[in-house]
Amino acid sequence: MDERILLETVDFSKGLVPAIIIDVENKDVLMLAYMNNEALKRTIDTKTTWFWSRSRNEYWNKGATSGHFQYVKAISLDCDNDTLLVEVKQLGAACHTGNRSCFFKKVNF
Amino acid sequence: MDERILLETVDFSKGLVPAIIIDVENKDVLMLAYMNNEALKRTIDTKTTWFWSRSRNEYWNKGATSGHFQYVKAISLDCDNDTLLVEVKQLGAACHTGNRSCFFKKVNF
Repeated sequence: MDERILLETVDFSKGLVPAIIIDVENKDVLMLAYMNNEALKRTIDTKTTWFWSRSRNEYWNKGATSGHFQYVKAISLDCDNDTLLVEVKQLGAACHTGNRSCFFKKVNF
Repeated sequence: MDERILLETVDFSKGLVPAIIIDVENKDVLMLAYMNNEALKRTIDTKTTWFWSRSRNEYWNKGATSGHFQYVKAISLDCDNDTLLVEVKQLGAACHTGNRSCFFKKVNF
């Protein structure tokens, strides 16, 4: 698959699609945010992550204010084309709390 | 955090929450599906994953028909309480296509 095919294949018919962001170096899941077609386009064009903020109703380029940019190394699409998996080189912390990952509250079974 | 606190803390106010499923052994991202409060309750009670199917409008216990159950080893909640990260021991394939992971279409940057 190439970038053009990726853009054409993602199914936005149910609305925003979740993008799982993982650290390309150690595979840690860093965060999840949402993309629409334009956010994915900007992500491909700039090779940094762009999302659609559901709370602020605006595009955001992760790192634009914090400096904690995510440099995109690969994007995978799931079997039914409505979830993205984005491998990134993460500068600093992914989470606004200062934690490297947003998933820092854990229950073991 | 314990299981009771987890159940009380998840924010379902925006609707279903995405659950990222990863392989506890190698950290591969296997799939993403959606949970509501009852699906999360059933997941905790049975220690196997339960989801709400948006296409079939019903609960599904992953593996009930395929035998490819996901045994839950840990659940993490993200900073704003609206995404779950579930670490599982995966029997067989996570994907209905027979692939181990649903994310088998990849573009490298």
